[in-house]
Amino acid sequence: MAKNFKITLSSDEVPKNWYNINADLPEPLPKPKNSEGHDQIAALEKAFTKAALEQEFSTERYIKIPNEVRELYMQMGRPSPLFRATRLEEKLNTPAKIYYKREDTSPTGSHKLNSAIPQAYFAKKEGVERLTTETGAGQWGTALSLACNLLDLECTVYMVRVSFNQKPDRKNIMNIYDGQVFASPSNNTKVGREILEKDPDHPGSLGIAISEAMEEALEYDNVKYTLGSVLNHVMLHQTVIGQELKVQLEKAEEEPDVMIACTGGGSNFAGALFPFIKDKIDGNSDTQFIGVEPSACPTLTKGSYEYDFGDTNGFTPLMKMYTLGHDFVAPTVHAGGLRYHGMSPQVSLLADHGLFEARSAHQQDVFKAGIMFARNEGVLPAPETTHAIKAGIDEALKAKETGEEKTIVINFSGHGMLDLKGYASYFEGTMPNSK
Amino acid sequence: MAKNFKITLSSDEVPKNWYNINADLPEPLPKPKNSEGHDQIAALEKAFTKAALEQEFSTERYIKIPNEVRELYMQMGRPSPLFRATRLEEKLNTPAKIYYKREDTSPTGSHKLNSAIPQAYFAKKEGVERLTTETGAGQWGTALSLACNLLDLECTVYMVRVSFNQKPDRKNIMNIYDGQVFASPSNNTKVGREILEKDPDHPGSLGIAISEAMEEALEYDNVKYTLGSVLNHVMLHQTVIGQELKVQLEKAEEEPDVMIACTGGGSNFAGALFPFIKDKIDGNSDTQFIGVEPSACPTLTKGSYEYDFGDTNGFTPLMKMYTLGHDFVAPTVHAGGLRYHGMSPQVSLLADHGLFEARSAHQQDVFKAGIMFARNEGVLPAPETTHAIKAGIDEALKAKETGEEKTIVINFSGHGMLDLKGYASYFEGTMPNSK
Repeated sequence: MAKNFKITLSSDEVPKNWYNINADLPEPLPKPKNSEGHDQIAALEKAFTKAALEQEFSTERYIKIPNEVRELYMQMGRPSPLFRATRLEEKLNTPAKIYYKREDTSPTGSHKLNSAIPQAYFAKKEGVERLTTETGAGQWGTALSLACNLLDLECTVYMVRVSFNQKPDRKNIMNIYDGQVFASPSNNTKVGREILEKDPDHPGSLGIAISEAMEEALEYDNVKYTLGSVLNHVMLHQTVIGQELKVQLEKAEEEPDVMIACTGGGSNFAGALFPFIKDKIDGNSDTQFIGVEPSACPTLTKGSYEYDFGDTNGFTPLMKMYTLGHDFVAPTVHAGGLRYHGMSPQVSLLADHGLFEARSAHQQDVFKAGIMFARNEGVLPAPETTHAIKAGIDEALKAKETGEEKTIVINFSGHGMLDLKGYASYFEGTMPNSK
Repeated sequence: MAKNFKITLSSDEVPKNWYNINADLPEPLPKPKNSEGHDQIAALEKAFTKAALEQEFSTERYIKIPNEVRELYMQMGRPSPLFRATRLEEKLNTPAKIYYKREDTSPTGSHKLNSAIPQAYFAKKEGVERLTTETGAGQWGTALSLACNLLDLECTVYMVRVSFNQKPDRKNIMNIYDGQVFASPSNNTKVGREILEKDPDHPGSLGIAISEAMEEALEYDNVKYTLGSVLNHVMLHQTVIGQELKVQLEKAEEEPDVMIACTGGGSNFAGALFPFIKDKIDGNSDTQFIGVEPSACPTLTKGSYEYDFGDTNGFTPLMKMYTLGHDFVAPTVHAGGLRYHGMSPQVSLLADHGLFEARSAHQQDVFKAGIMFARNEGVLPAPETTHAIKAGIDEALKAKETGEEKTIVINFSGHGMLDLKGYASYFEGTMPNSK
């Protein structure tokens, strides 16, 4: 009969708990450490909200989502729909079924709001008046600006100056949500002023932007710092995706054979896949999990699993994770996002235990896959999301060869409506196929 | 209990028929006419598909949606969800309930795909190989590019040169969907070449773009011309919106007191409201209907109801409609869209019979309303859509004064992710409050 083109859930099907994979990891997560002669852990404790720190180190399997946060999730449109890519299946002439979870349907266009809302909520509850953060591509800064506005908090975003100049629309959307955006380095902070004194035209870096955002949180009691990926509490918040996905796949009467997400700092991968990886750890699943990263920033495929700083300048504690070295700088690629030198410690530990397969993909190949997707399914994926789509297409083509009716599930982490210049460079042939 | 934050429908609840208001108009629609010494009707018959012409003049109340079109609607995500704006209600402290129908959830970000898909479908069925059209702001050109791609047709879009230069992202998205976009005037057509010979830097106009697109359809047998608004068959296709909305309001156990849509050429107004206006004509409804237009292009509020050309140059037949005169040029406003000198003849006839209230709104006021909406509900409205939102807020504030628990329904025709520069000009104070 009629195919399931989409599987929607009602507002009250938003999950009631976040799922904390710390309770189920095959070994305890290595603790963060100070570097010799420094106390970065104390700085972290001053910079973050109490709730974030408590969740960061919790080993409770399920952590209740406060009613107010659940209601905000609903008001912002959760649960997100699950779509079936029937036209893409036909185009590929594959016996595989391809599903995609539509995190792009969030008002800010990506999954980032899932963590921005609770981070702002807990800050408000603790009497915080302003949140600071850094942003590179801009997805996280956009989500935090909206979340702060929803919870009546001020929001300050330090945006790497070169991105700030190249992406005026990202600044515009943050302003619409009442976020204050500063090109970093800025005159707001000691770190910024020192750099600008030496070089007034400094292009900025994510490391500097982190330093500026953290400096404010360390200096003022009513200001806290937030991060949009990498840390455990961010992974935790994102698990609403995977929990909804479980219910939707049950409704569609599907058992996923392959599940795919892109990996930058790890948050959309964790959010969509941790609840399913739990079943694998428990011995109740033989689903294949795939994380896809750019070959230009091959953290999981070419990095090493060791203690490293989370930022360039060594302001954060040392964390055990896959890393390319904290001084790694990705070559100039247009894909935006997915340029982080490290990886969520939780995702890293799972990779080390072989619980999922990490792959890398070249930029031109992922854009090509993204365009194929848009031309068949209509929705234009964010450059980050195209990495997952590339692997999904590859898996569907493998299924065609073997004749297997595999069920493939892709986490569609965000849309590309604010990344059209990247796509244009693909057509113009000015995009380097960076290795 | 829990509020209904959103009301979704399953794929198989996509309507099976389009609703044709020609069957229920309080008097027959005045027929299009030739101007003296010209046969524009013959040109129209050559330029459009047979199906479009048949639907244009049909008086059948329900016209079956072909199965293939219904399936494409489903694959592109229909039915669209209906959301309740609970946070906006709280902010306004109104007893009114505000609902908004999310046509922005279409892959191209607006309601335009609802007509682009059937127009492309019927063309393909009639052996057409390429469709042409003009585009100003770009929403229609984007939708037609995708629809042609879905149906394996070529697509040529003539984009007014000044828009083409100002909005590279609109060209980019059309290219992603494999649409061929030309700055108009172009060298493709006789009309274009003649203009360029005299003035190689001509900025173009919608009238010229229409002429170029029509010239191709008149010249080649395998090419047809399409329009994204104004004509009856376009209104017809859009009625999937209102029919879904009826089912959703029933599920929410709501009777709408006020229903609002913006009006440019009339297509999103018609789509959302015609199925409800039918009930009013039948004497079964006392819902209040409101159409909102820019005060800079006040077709319904300041125009006159008379025979006029649909285009600047007089290539179309004369149609009886509200018009500001076919040589009207809207002052340079940032709002994009809603700049058409005329109005759908069907919508015009309903206005003439007092079946809905037409209002105009100033640009700064509608952008202000759009920002208020985005800050509370998350979703950023297209500049066109902000006109409907402004009226929705006004009605909710009236209900606050009178203490009435009114149910207000807004058609959210599209998102503003590709209109961020317009919003930026609001913040920068460079936006004229054009009269």
